[in-house]
Amino acid sequence: MPRFKLTLEYDGAGLVGWQRQKLGLSVQQIVEDAAAALCGARVVVHGAGRTDAGVHALAQAAHLDLPRDYPPDTVRNALNQHMRPHKVAVIAAARVADSFDARRSARGRVYLYRILNRRPPLALESGRVWHVGRALDAAAMADGARHLLGQHDFSSFRDSQCQARSPVKTLDLLEVTRADDEIRIEARARSFLHHQVRNMVGTLKLVGEGKWRAADVARALEARDRRAGGPTAPAEGLYLVRVVYPGD
Amino acid sequence: MPRFKLTLEYDGAGLVGWQRQKLGLSVQQIVEDAAAALCGARVVVHGAGRTDAGVHALAQAAHLDLPRDYPPDTVRNALNQHMRPHKVAVIAAARVADSFDARRSARGRVYLYRILNRRPPLALESGRVWHVGRALDAAAMADGARHLLGQHDFSSFRDSQCQARSPVKTLDLLEVTRADDEIRIEARARSFLHHQVRNMVGTLKLVGEGKWRAADVARALEARDRRAGGPTAPAEGLYLVRVVYPGD
Repeated sequence: MPRFKLTLEYDGAGLVGWQRQKLGLSVQQIVEDAAAALCGARVVVHGAGRTDAGVHALAQAAHLDLPRDYPPDTVRNALNQHMRPHKVAVIAAARVADSFDARRSARGRVYLYRILNRRPPLALESGRVWHVGRALDAAAMADGARHLLGQHDFSSFRDSQCQARSPVKTLDLLEVTRADDEIRIEARARSFLHHQVRNMVGTLKLVGEGKWRAADVARALEARDRRAGGPTAPAEGLYLVRVVYPGD
Repeated sequence: MPRFKLTLEYDGAGLVGWQRQKLGLSVQQIVEDAAAALCGARVVVHGAGRTDAGVHALAQAAHLDLPRDYPPDTVRNALNQHMRPHKVAVIAAARVADSFDARRSARGRVYLYRILNRRPPLALESGRVWHVGRALDAAAMADGARHLLGQHDFSSFRDSQCQARSPVKTLDLLEVTRADDEIRIEARARSFLHHQVRNMVGTLKLVGEGKWRAADVARALEARDRRAGGPTAPAEGLYLVRVVYPGD
């Protein structure tokens, strides 16, 4: 059966996340239902990774096998038509080799976390950012972030539900920048533990508030204990920006 | 009575625009009701300009007179509290001289029009941009825009309901830029005619599609007749970005 790679954008609000669940609507279910409507048979859609409830994606990746060969643009357009009015869109569809696996073939994941740091409430960005009213020191957060770069046991930033075999991951990028009221945290690794980005962001916020020093981030990391890390930042500020494959 | 300047952000979706109307909820009414709740008396809020139904603002300006002198941050915070859950926020409040008039004192208005130019539907930017599926040539649109710069009779881009005394306006900036799928059109003038930005954008889109040449924009302008201009671009892509005052 011909295999297709999908690149997906979605608004995580109101969805239970990527993975199909009995209670609540998931991105996977929306795409699988659309694929079933396209080809008249049940289709499993395999994502590059599970995003949590409320997390957005600019370019999640997935693959699926269809019972016959359609032009890729037909797959994209038909899925988009069947997914209406859900806020999930196929940005691109491509025919790929049977060896391509959205999760296993991935060489990297890029996430963006957006904080809107201002006292007034949000009118336009509500649900799209973490609204933090207290002034944050982004330079201090950037200092704290540097302690997390490289290969470490990230148990202090790992959710108790995490199913990864090992807590050791290699963080290739964790960059904190400010533009006006917005603080953007970009994270890149081959893969992440469950809630790792949100737990790192929640920890860096403590540094930004002055409750922690940058060096406290290193101490939290060394503890290898979730209780030593900071709180989990809310889902609504997190975006899966890109999944990187060989040859990209 | 002490006068305050307000800087307002709002999501235009679902609102009838700036101006109070009998049918439907306006930004003006939301702010006036909040001001009445703050001070216990009816208050009129004067905007720098009327934005249409569905148009967003990053920084609309307005002024109001309150029966007593509050610290500006109290005005900002109290109005924000009373405006919940509407998607209208006071970004800043400042005490100003009685001679300050949000509309008459303004020396310029800056608007941004956002087009998302891609075939797939929108998941994250729905309601925040004009979704144009057909490929647009942004460089051609920029060429067309240059014909509109300067002082002209803009009757061809003026809504029939426009109440301005003269159709002559001076366009200081009309810049078209593309970044990936997004085309941004920035417009600046001391003031604009009703629907002028949206009518200019609708016209430039004809150029972007190749239906018009850049020189056709000059011909439309010279006609001084609304029937010679292009269609009105939808409200949802338009943002009032800034109102400029002397000394800014």
